[in-house]
Amino acid sequence: MFASVKAKPSILDAGTMLEKECLSHLSIDCVIFGYHEKQLKILCTRIGAMKGWLLPGGFIKKTEDIDDAASRILAERTGVKDLYLNQFRVFGKPNRSWKNAEELEELKNVSGAQASALKWISQRFVSIGYYALTEYSAVKPKPGLFDSECNWFDIYNLPPLLLDHEEIVTEAFKTLQQRLHHEPIGLNLLPEKFTLPELQALYETILEKKLDQRNFTKKLVYLDLIRKLNEKKYIGGHRSPTLYKFNKREYNDAVRNGVELAF
Amino acid sequence: MFASVKAKPSILDAGTMLEKECLSHLSIDCVIFGYHEKQLKILCTRIGAMKGWLLPGGFIKKTEDIDDAASRILAERTGVKDLYLNQFRVFGKPNRSWKNAEELEELKNVSGAQASALKWISQRFVSIGYYALTEYSAVKPKPGLFDSECNWFDIYNLPPLLLDHEEIVTEAFKTLQQRLHHEPIGLNLLPEKFTLPELQALYETILEKKLDQRNFTKKLVYLDLIRKLNEKKYIGGHRSPTLYKFNKREYNDAVRNGVELAF
Repeated sequence: MFASVKAKPSILDAGTMLEKECLSHLSIDCVIFGYHEKQLKILCTRIGAMKGWLLPGGFIKKTEDIDDAASRILAERTGVKDLYLNQFRVFGKPNRSWKNAEELEELKNVSGAQASALKWISQRFVSIGYYALTEYSAVKPKPGLFDSECNWFDIYNLPPLLLDHEEIVTEAFKTLQQRLHHEPIGLNLLPEKFTLPELQALYETILEKKLDQRNFTKKLVYLDLIRKLNEKKYIGGHRSPTLYKFNKREYNDAVRNGVELAF
Repeated sequence: MFASVKAKPSILDAGTMLEKECLSHLSIDCVIFGYHEKQLKILCTRIGAMKGWLLPGGFIKKTEDIDDAASRILAERTGVKDLYLNQFRVFGKPNRSWKNAEELEELKNVSGAQASALKWISQRFVSIGYYALTEYSAVKPKPGLFDSECNWFDIYNLPPLLLDHEEIVTEAFKTLQQRLHHEPIGLNLLPEKFTLPELQALYETILEKKLDQRNFTKKLVYLDLIRKLNEKKYIGGHRSPTLYKFNKREYNDAVRNGVELAF
């Protein structure tokens, strides 16, 4: 006997486990935004040989908090850990289901425990959307147990997404843009010491618009969110832009209590 | 035989209907804010002889959109119709359940179909929170089939609320305050023609802070959300404040596309 190369298990191998361990009708989908040098990406994953891609998603265990479930699901599907995930919207159209998705067509001839899993997965799911924002160059996604691939895609050039996952991305992006007016960002997205053009590029990339440089700086300095250092960044030539740093206490207060930025 | 006064049915009379018709594990709770002359109220309801009060809530039918379910539930429990309900947060702690609520203690000796209903109601529920804002003097709540009372309560003087409903109110209020910076309000909360102090009082009541009168007016006029009329309101004495009106087109555009108010 030769040891065969171990193939990836199918989600149907979960058999009756899903029904026993998870809440029916409820799922979670995560929109992970990755920022790096004026680029915004989304983390997508692909199950087996399915043609389309998916947001990393999954189910809630019967005794699990929904926020904990979101973190666990993200880690299991993509290997990505320690992100602060924000709930942003529930997707609850009555026809939200894999039932009619052609991706499951080819599986229709299963029986036994696999048929139980297929039936469970084909029910209607109301999905809770979560999002997070991270520096993507540091994050190397690792496909989960059922996933054949897991990758970052440019937000303006996403692969075909299954179900309503494109709508979920759109809604998450709207929420991210709105929250930028109440919540500072940048602490984990920029180097510890950064230049004003670097900070402004981050905001402009997410807001999809140009900002007035003087007003932008004035507001962040006025709110004590950033402070000027006695250091310059050497970028060659004659220009050596000044470096700034976040004031961590004021920054964290603003995250907790909200702040009016209104760019 | 004399016709007896018809008592209110108990929710347990729903028997196996709940399990047959509704999605398990999922509920909806509605926070209805009512504004009238510098007062902010919340619509609460009470089931049977329970000691505590509840937000109007209920379950989602198996083939029903979640937003439609929210409107139906609100109408069934309180008689209140035609409000635009906004999703704001999901409450999903693992112990969210009537299982240990003392209110159901007294019902423990039921059997048959009533026992099925009790079991169904005692499961874990992940609840989707919705909120709306209305002019409360025009809304006369009407208790639903299972409700003994249904009333407006001052937000600073709520009756004891069951389960985590106080937390749900707190979270809804935070969301309402934040959205005020992106979304104009007032169109259905003030008379068609209103004075600036009336409009400002509305914002100050919800934001729980005083606003600078000149900036407040300047911003709303600058954004074309309101316009000055050639009319004054007669309030006796020497003061006759000028009346204003909303520009409906600009107002509705701002509701749809968001606007930066940042008071």
